[in-house]
Amino acid sequence: MPPFQDYLQPGERLDDLQLNGLHLIQDPEGFCFGVDAVLLSHFARPKRNARVIDLGTGTGVIPLLLAGKNPHCHITGVEIQPTQAERARRSVAMNRLNERIQILNHDIRHLQEVLAPASFQVVTSNPPYLPPGSLTNPREEKAIARHEITLTLQELMAQTAWLLEPGGQFYLIHRPQRLADIMVLGRQYRLEPKWMQMVHSHSHKAPTMVLLQLTKNGRPELKSHPPLIIYHPDGTYTPQLLACYGKEKEAAP
Amino acid sequence: MPPFQDYLQPGERLDDLQLNGLHLIQDPEGFCFGVDAVLLSHFARPKRNARVIDLGTGTGVIPLLLAGKNPHCHITGVEIQPTQAERARRSVAMNRLNERIQILNHDIRHLQEVLAPASFQVVTSNPPYLPPGSLTNPREEKAIARHEITLTLQELMAQTAWLLEPGGQFYLIHRPQRLADIMVLGRQYRLEPKWMQMVHSHSHKAPTMVLLQLTKNGRPELKSHPPLIIYHPDGTYTPQLLACYGKEKEAAP
Repeated sequence: MPPFQDYLQPGERLDDLQLNGLHLIQDPEGFCFGVDAVLLSHFARPKRNARVIDLGTGTGVIPLLLAGKNPHCHITGVEIQPTQAERARRSVAMNRLNERIQILNHDIRHLQEVLAPASFQVVTSNPPYLPPGSLTNPREEKAIARHEITLTLQELMAQTAWLLEPGGQFYLIHRPQRLADIMVLGRQYRLEPKWMQMVHSHSHKAPTMVLLQLTKNGRPELKSHPPLIIYHPDGTYTPQLLACYGKEKEAAP
Repeated sequence: MPPFQDYLQPGERLDDLQLNGLHLIQDPEGFCFGVDAVLLSHFARPKRNARVIDLGTGTGVIPLLLAGKNPHCHITGVEIQPTQAERARRSVAMNRLNERIQILNHDIRHLQEVLAPASFQVVTSNPPYLPPGSLTNPREEKAIARHEITLTLQELMAQTAWLLEPGGQFYLIHRPQRLADIMVLGRQYRLEPKWMQMVHSHSHKAPTMVLLQLTKNGRPELKSHPPLIIYHPDGTYTPQLLACYGKEKEAAP
């Protein structure tokens, strides 16, 4: 194996994912992964040997974290942007995960061209949070990652339902503002919301993100996890948040 | 006015609502109001002079609390059970609120027989939380208050939509387990979820109740309040909870 630096192109940065020595290639000028990708990777619990697909994978951070946390699952990451997909592929190669992670440079809306129906047990997605009509970021890479430009929530739900086998799980992180949309579309596409966890920056603040598990053909009943709080009142990270980064020990009293 | 005790029948109990001297007649063997009625009355914010209707009013606790907190609104309470409705009427008379609160002993499913469409600005409801199929309480009065025996969630949403004027508000307390049902039915009946507040017994526990404001013909976007926590870690009530009981001062440090 060549050293990590040999995988980098000019302007790119190497980030330590702090999990089994995994590293990620990112463009500091482009869309970089945030805490939401880490939370979703921790929230998703694929079964051993599960076939997992991550829709809108960007730099491939979610497939890498899932592969690090779940040593026996196989993950397909789908990304529409060629530069992001190519960067994700280099990160996979650099981490020697070619046998477990495949990056598809494809439009999620047209996965019927390359994949089979009901062929995955798990779908994950950290999709664009903002409606297409809102102000877009001038840099296209960031705009596509943040706004529903190339993929609406409805298209995401429809494709997820098509990809999942019956009983399969969809793990999603989104803004609470979209909860009604997610639940209405979920019911429409037979993706039943089964587990919810609100994410709060501080315990006394309104939630800023929501983690959801929806089950294909699931029975209606939404269970809730305790809220996930990011910061203590003094601004330090909570043990809950550190656990998502695989740092349980450091957080112990 | 005769003294309060003259309004009581054998076996009944008088409870101090701790708000402007209001008192409530309850049967300790029947269904008594809980913290959920208090939380909903605090969460609902009818405009001055609003016409309010409380669906499934039981002993009338929500109309009484709303009348105490909102001195200019007029409230109709609807209750299917004759004994509960009669008890609610005595509580209203005892509190000298006959001019502002009317108790209708009627089936919510048939309000079309006695009320006009779009004739209210606000609907409140603390409906039965449990599906009809689950184990019912042997005492009918409690069973009807707790289980969807005489009113399903769908019937409640349909009647609420019929009663509200465009832009009118529906304030609801329910279990988080039913959130998907509420949001799906809300969208179906053009009652858009606009505000949500999770209620937790303790800050690190999963929510046990959810407060919702839905708006007739509202634009989709669900905003969240900070969570409402009932107990401090030491078991004492939080200032948030005491504020719902109108006890802000006692909670100050």
